[in-house]
Amino acid sequence: MADAFDPTTHPHRRFNPLTNEHVLVSPHRTKRPWLGQTEAPQPTNLPQYDPACYLCPGNSRSSGDKNDTYDHTMVFRNDFAAVLPPPGPLGPAAPHPLLATQPVQGDCDVIIFHPRHDLTLAHLPAEDIEKIIEEWVSIYHKRGTQEGIKYVQIFENKGAMMGCSNPHPHGQVWSLSEVPTIPSIELASLKRYASNPDVSSSEAPRGPNGEPCLLCEYVHYERSVPQDEGRIVVQNEHWVALVPWWATWPFEILVLPHHCHIPSLAHLTPEEKTSFAQILSAMTIRYDNLFSSSFAYSMGIHQRPVPAKEGADDEDDVAHLHLHFFPPLLRSASVKKFIVGFELMAEAQRDLTPEQAAQKLRACSDVHYST
Amino acid sequence: MADAFDPTTHPHRRFNPLTNEHVLVSPHRTKRPWLGQTEAPQPTNLPQYDPACYLCPGNSRSSGDKNDTYDHTMVFRNDFAAVLPPPGPLGPAAPHPLLATQPVQGDCDVIIFHPRHDLTLAHLPAEDIEKIIEEWVSIYHKRGTQEGIKYVQIFENKGAMMGCSNPHPHGQVWSLSEVPTIPSIELASLKRYASNPDVSSSEAPRGPNGEPCLLCEYVHYERSVPQDEGRIVVQNEHWVALVPWWATWPFEILVLPHHCHIPSLAHLTPEEKTSFAQILSAMTIRYDNLFSSSFAYSMGIHQRPVPAKEGADDEDDVAHLHLHFFPPLLRSASVKKFIVGFELMAEAQRDLTPEQAAQKLRACSDVHYST
Ligand SMILES: [Zn+2]
Ligand SMILES: [Zn+2]
Repeated sequence: MADAFDPTTHPHRRFNPLTNEHVLVSPHRTKRPWLGQTEAPQPTNLPQYDPACYLCPGNSRSSGDKNDTYDHTMVFRNDFAAVLPPPGPLGPAAPHPLLATQPVQGDCDVIIFHPRHDLTLAHLPAEDIEKIIEEWVSIYHKRGTQEGIKYVQIFENKGAMMGCSNPHPHGQVWSLSEVPTIPSIELASLKRYASNPDVSSSEAPRGPNGEPCLLCEYVHYERSVPQDEGRIVVQNEHWVALVPWWATWPFEILVLPHHCHIPSLAHLTPEEKTSFAQILSAMTIRYDNLFSSSFAYSMGIHQRPVPAKEGADDEDDVAHLHLHFFPPLLRSASVKKFIVGFELMAEAQRDLTPEQAAQKLRACSDVHYST
Repeated sequence: MADAFDPTTHPHRRFNPLTNEHVLVSPHRTKRPWLGQTEAPQPTNLPQYDPACYLCPGNSRSSGDKNDTYDHTMVFRNDFAAVLPPPGPLGPAAPHPLLATQPVQGDCDVIIFHPRHDLTLAHLPAEDIEKIIEEWVSIYHKRGTQEGIKYVQIFENKGAMMGCSNPHPHGQVWSLSEVPTIPSIELASLKRYASNPDVSSSEAPRGPNGEPCLLCEYVHYERSVPQDEGRIVVQNEHWVALVPWWATWPFEILVLPHHCHIPSLAHLTPEEKTSFAQILSAMTIRYDNLFSSSFAYSMGIHQRPVPAKEGADDEDDVAHLHLHFFPPLLRSASVKKFIVGFELMAEAQRDLTPEQAAQKLRACSDVHYST
């Protein structure tokens, strides 16, 4: 009991208040010799246009449809959708209460981010990222107001390491007739926090009805920590990108608005969209600079499940718009983290602390290494 | 609405009552052309003894310690443990209620399964697997009765695909001063089920105090389904290995006793250990035969957190001993499933149904392909 607690030395657990799960942090292990899986280096020097790419302008897709010669973004229905549009059959009677079948309908869309085959968010000027944000706003409205849709999940897999077989910059949108597990758990946590009378008041912005918002409160605290000690990687007038206290991926980042409570993409002002594009540019440039390579990740947008419907209950406004970036790389452009064993069976686990990860990302240049 | 619901055609969700999470099933997608990540083939023709292996009998480990010339199993403390034994420092005061630090102590052990470098569970005679089970029983007792330990997590990572850098057969045991997230969630689900007055009675065995047990009830139902239609892969007098209704991995298997409620390894009779070894042999042989390759997986044992302490509350006896096998392979010896995008951000998702997976595993020979 002699030593004082040191978060860079002593094993400890941190609690994720969005999902109510813990992460086990083992900072003393960052010195062990063998960590993670070695991956082949990602291809570089991609062409600006690839005649074999089904996402490049004017090319044909596997459905036989031909892409437009689009200037900024383009949206089409995924030819191998995980869910199918309504109507679908009703579920069968459950043979046992533990084996109920819940049919699900919906749509899966692909958003091409840019005509250039070789560019990613980290290479695009903020004006071009703003066009992608406009496309997210528009598809959130289009799919989210469709009959029977209860959640619109926007996400991006970037890099072969994340199962993305085509480097042409693009994301996906799965719209479902049920709220999926993780957004549903997060929403419940936000609701619980809003109605908890024990939450002490701070100067943080408040959620609907003046009730406390878990994420407004959290980001307000993070902004009060001296910059070089904390978890913030970059910030601007409206947005923060930080490695959350409870991060499970080595260089996980949470992007969220800090100046007020914003439930969804539909609530963004033009100024907020502009600064949103700027922070996405700033943080993805740092990601690429970390290991001087195109940084793989899965990104997902969590927000109000669907836009408010007329006459509908507005309790879903407790949602606080945020983006998760889960990157697999651990300590070089080719060594990624395994999610196996203890993590699959018991609890998320990390060696590097979130503060150490934020420090490494802050130390990266804000100019892309390739320029 | 014309079609009747067909679980091999229509997207649907299934509920996992152990973790209270859903899995999205997209069976119509099993026909899409590109699925999963191609891995390099695993090395075959390993030597019986490898002078460079730190697990082979008589060899030295990185700590400098030398292995015994053991005949069956051998246990040693992990040289790169994720947690450290007590005492440790107290946690610091939380700077904000959302950033509490929970120090954690414990031990990490390695269990070598067999002296032979080249054998896995699928190759070992059941008598040798029984020696491993005895070692699990003994370490569960040793660590679980240690001051301050609240959970003993036994697991195995098999195959380079699962981050296992050494093919010499071995598993791990992490013993912690806190109950980790997943076992804690499962235990809460079992307790909720036991005290739910709405659970209808069946002929299934019962848990403590005659209360219903979620897993006794579930496995009882599965055994009532005609063998060639259901999810059971193999079974014997005491044990069942099945692809659970709510499986998220393509060929996930749950192994559990079916003839009575068994809270932990410490409760097993000699006969139950013998048949336990037999079912582990039978199911791992089928795993290897599925793609005629050494089948990678993470395996974990869930049970009563630690053995009962004298005078302690016995409500943890609601735990029902079971093993999870999570294998990454999808449709060949080299194509594995990605866990990315929608699955990380929203909900587990699978294409192949659990019934289809069980059918493929049942169709495998019960004799190892290499013999
Ligand atoms: Zn979220
Ligand atoms: Zn379990």
